[in-house]
Amino acid sequence: MATPTAFTIPVLAVVGPGLIGGSLAAALKQAGCVGRVLGVSRQVSTTHHALQLGLIDEIVDITTAAQRADIIVLATPVGATRSLLQQIKPHLQPHTLITDAGSTKADVLRAATEVLGGQIGQFIPGHPIAGAEKAGPEAALADLYRNRIVILTPHKETAPSAKAKIIQLWEQCGARVMLMSAEEHDRVLASISHVPHFLSSVFMWQVASAADADVRLHVAGSGFRDFTRIAAGSAEVWRDIFLSNRAAVLSELKQVRAAFEQAETALLESDGTALYEFLEKAALARRLWGSRSGLE
Amino acid sequence: MATPTAFTIPVLAVVGPGLIGGSLAAALKQAGCVGRVLGVSRQVSTTHHALQLGLIDEIVDITTAAQRADIIVLATPVGATRSLLQQIKPHLQPHTLITDAGSTKADVLRAATEVLGGQIGQFIPGHPIAGAEKAGPEAALADLYRNRIVILTPHKETAPSAKAKIIQLWEQCGARVMLMSAEEHDRVLASISHVPHFLSSVFMWQVASAADADVRLHVAGSGFRDFTRIAAGSAEVWRDIFLSNRAAVLSELKQVRAAFEQAETALLESDGTALYEFLEKAALARRLWGSRSGLE
Repeated sequence: MATPTAFTIPVLAVVGPGLIGGSLAAALKQAGCVGRVLGVSRQVSTTHHALQLGLIDEIVDITTAAQRADIIVLATPVGATRSLLQQIKPHLQPHTLITDAGSTKADVLRAATEVLGGQIGQFIPGHPIAGAEKAGPEAALADLYRNRIVILTPHKETAPSAKAKIIQLWEQCGARVMLMSAEEHDRVLASISHVPHFLSSVFMWQVASAADADVRLHVAGSGFRDFTRIAAGSAEVWRDIFLSNRAAVLSELKQVRAAFEQAETALLESDGTALYEFLEKAALARRLWGSRSGLE
Repeated sequence: MATPTAFTIPVLAVVGPGLIGGSLAAALKQAGCVGRVLGVSRQVSTTHHALQLGLIDEIVDITTAAQRADIIVLATPVGATRSLLQQIKPHLQPHTLITDAGSTKADVLRAATEVLGGQIGQFIPGHPIAGAEKAGPEAALADLYRNRIVILTPHKETAPSAKAKIIQLWEQCGARVMLMSAEEHDRVLASISHVPHFLSSVFMWQVASAADADVRLHVAGSGFRDFTRIAAGSAEVWRDIFLSNRAAVLSELKQVRAAFEQAETALLESDGTALYEFLEKAALARRLWGSRSGLE
């Protein structure tokens, strides 16, 4: 992936070198565009394993990372962002850029603006739409981001050259970068990620709560399996996602509930035509998405 | 699968030898427990291909099937059942059993009771919980039913020996047979099959209807893919399923809507504890199902 006008990061710091952060480090190393990778974690085992696996070259604390890194990547749960930025700020070099990989962006940008003040232009929030079943540095893959989408939601004060660097960082990993506002990101993710998790969980909760849950679950087949797969995700992670993107999720749920009631009414009234048109629009949209997305 | 006390069907008639009916014929032939297989279809190409593929041995009309068959399997859309039974009845032999493979059962049993009257004991409604992406005799597989569940909902007037024959028919295909009432079947299927299709379609419809649908669908990933897969199904088939199982689906939707509103309220009130407990119950139930079902 190295281009004639070589993109290089002399020193990269990865805060949280697990699946997300470790895969980024691995991809940049494979692309040959990173000098030294510093690893930071509150959990000793994470940095220890990341070092053993060659994802990072050195274990440092957050202060050292702030002093030495050209780019700092925060690959930690969203809730830790504010505290990390507070620890970084006193030592932040003027040329250093910070990015993150959190799954909500308006709250992250708000916290960063409060903490960094005049230096907010150095923080470019990001969200790679990628993941895997497993977590931790052992699960890191150099090609996790290949052909996956990464959304960046830069603040208006961010210099074009700073934006360009973070775009290149992700493109070197094989990702396709999209730029949008933090609000648009949160609305889009509420729709295509958070609402499906909500509905899948609501359904799974209702089935598990039924008096004859055992019989139901015994009969359930492959359609049920696919529809409920996401509901198995970590309750802790998803509670935090819902709370941090609360307004956008509630707004989408209102729309979904209106669609639910419209379809329910068609069934209540045995309106075969309305029911058919509703199902056909959904089916056509899904088939078109399937053939365009390359995801099946 | 042949046992010492051999189970044999001298003459089997398959009405609609496509994916479902053709796979049944193939499985019974493979198990060596069927003499001659008659095929009936309104579509000449279906019986023609089924004959070429060796799924059936002879193409006949519905009258001949009724006169000659020991067991008649209706593997046609649920809407055709009443009319087929009306055509069969005048020629139905006293020893002949009829079963079907339709995805709703209370309406089928009601239609059969009206048409067959005193001969209702000869009709044992069934529903194999199996399917595939493709349709038609070309898609038929001898092992489609292996380890899959088949639900039978016999009328109270059906003789134990008749029930036993249809149970054996499916067990010879490698299926696991469950017996329940038609009402229980419809309630269970409403829950674990029809409601997921409803929710997946409602969601897909809402996303496709959004002003920024293009951006949303561009960002959508693998969670979205799994959650919406079933929404791509045939609108015609699903409209008929919803209408024929209307009461049970509406009853389940009411429960689902209550769960939806409960979770929505927790989010509205930023009640992290309630949200966590709700998500955790769903996640635990899904993980347990995943490990028990053997489906993933």
